[in-house]
Amino acid sequence: MSPSDPQCVFCRIAAGGIPCHKVLDQAGVLAFLDIAPIAAGHTVVIPRRHAARLDELEADALRELAGVLGPLAKRVCREVGAPAYNILQNNGLPAGQVVMHVHFHIIPRRDGDGLGFRWPAGSPAPAELAALAERIRAAG
Amino acid sequence: MSPSDPQCVFCRIAAGGIPCHKVLDQAGVLAFLDIAPIAAGHTVVIPRRHAARLDELEADALRELAGVLGPLAKRVCREVGAPAYNILQNNGLPAGQVVMHVHFHIIPRRDGDGLGFRWPAGSPAPAELAALAERIRAAG
Repeated sequence: MSPSDPQCVFCRIAAGGIPCHKVLDQAGVLAFLDIAPIAAGHTVVIPRRHAARLDELEADALRELAGVLGPLAKRVCREVGAPAYNILQNNGLPAGQVVMHVHFHIIPRRDGDGLGFRWPAGSPAPAELAALAERIRAAG
Repeated sequence: MSPSDPQCVFCRIAAGGIPCHKVLDQAGVLAFLDIAPIAAGHTVVIPRRHAARLDELEADALRELAGVLGPLAKRVCREVGAPAYNILQNNGLPAGQVVMHVHFHIIPRRDGDGLGFRWPAGSPAPAELAALAERIRAAG
């Protein structure tokens, strides 16, 4: 992790080298409209400091970013008249991450918009879940 | 918003009245395995304090929760051998929220798993985005 990566498009946006449709600008956080939105008001929120994945972002940077998500999402939804929203954050290529700089999507939602996460829910045996939970706890 | 809602299943889990496959337990935050997972290790992270939506959660509770997301996701992915993950948080019925208590999904991901958010990206005119960004900024 470095404070800024000159090869990173979001670092360049944060530094002002690439323009964006800014909706929020504060010390450690920038938010702008996605130029390829999947819903009106689709917004991207980034920490100014470079980190590829959420688990690589410093705790203070993440806390500042998290603090703006709720109020900003509410404001975005009000402006586009959406009653609901998803917060989505992707880590790694297999998770759909395209720009390797931590970013949160605010996705305004409405009934019947055809969006959403694919949700093929399983039903594993309780003993299997209990064993996995124990392993994750033990690794903490 | 109230500290605890006796009708809320996640408040009852947080209070210990309903069992769960716990993976993390700290002052203001609880995490447990989803019993209907869409991927092995699918984890739900909640604030102990009741709030229905992200924009209704107190800032200090959100900061504590946000601080655990990255390290916990990394640990979960290591235990299930997943190279990537999504963080997803739904607000409101049209966004797919089922339990009306703020919760973040940690969804481990791997190539070809068939999961992910549906992504019908649009390409609105720059002037349209500029006007919307201006309205959102002005509402701030």
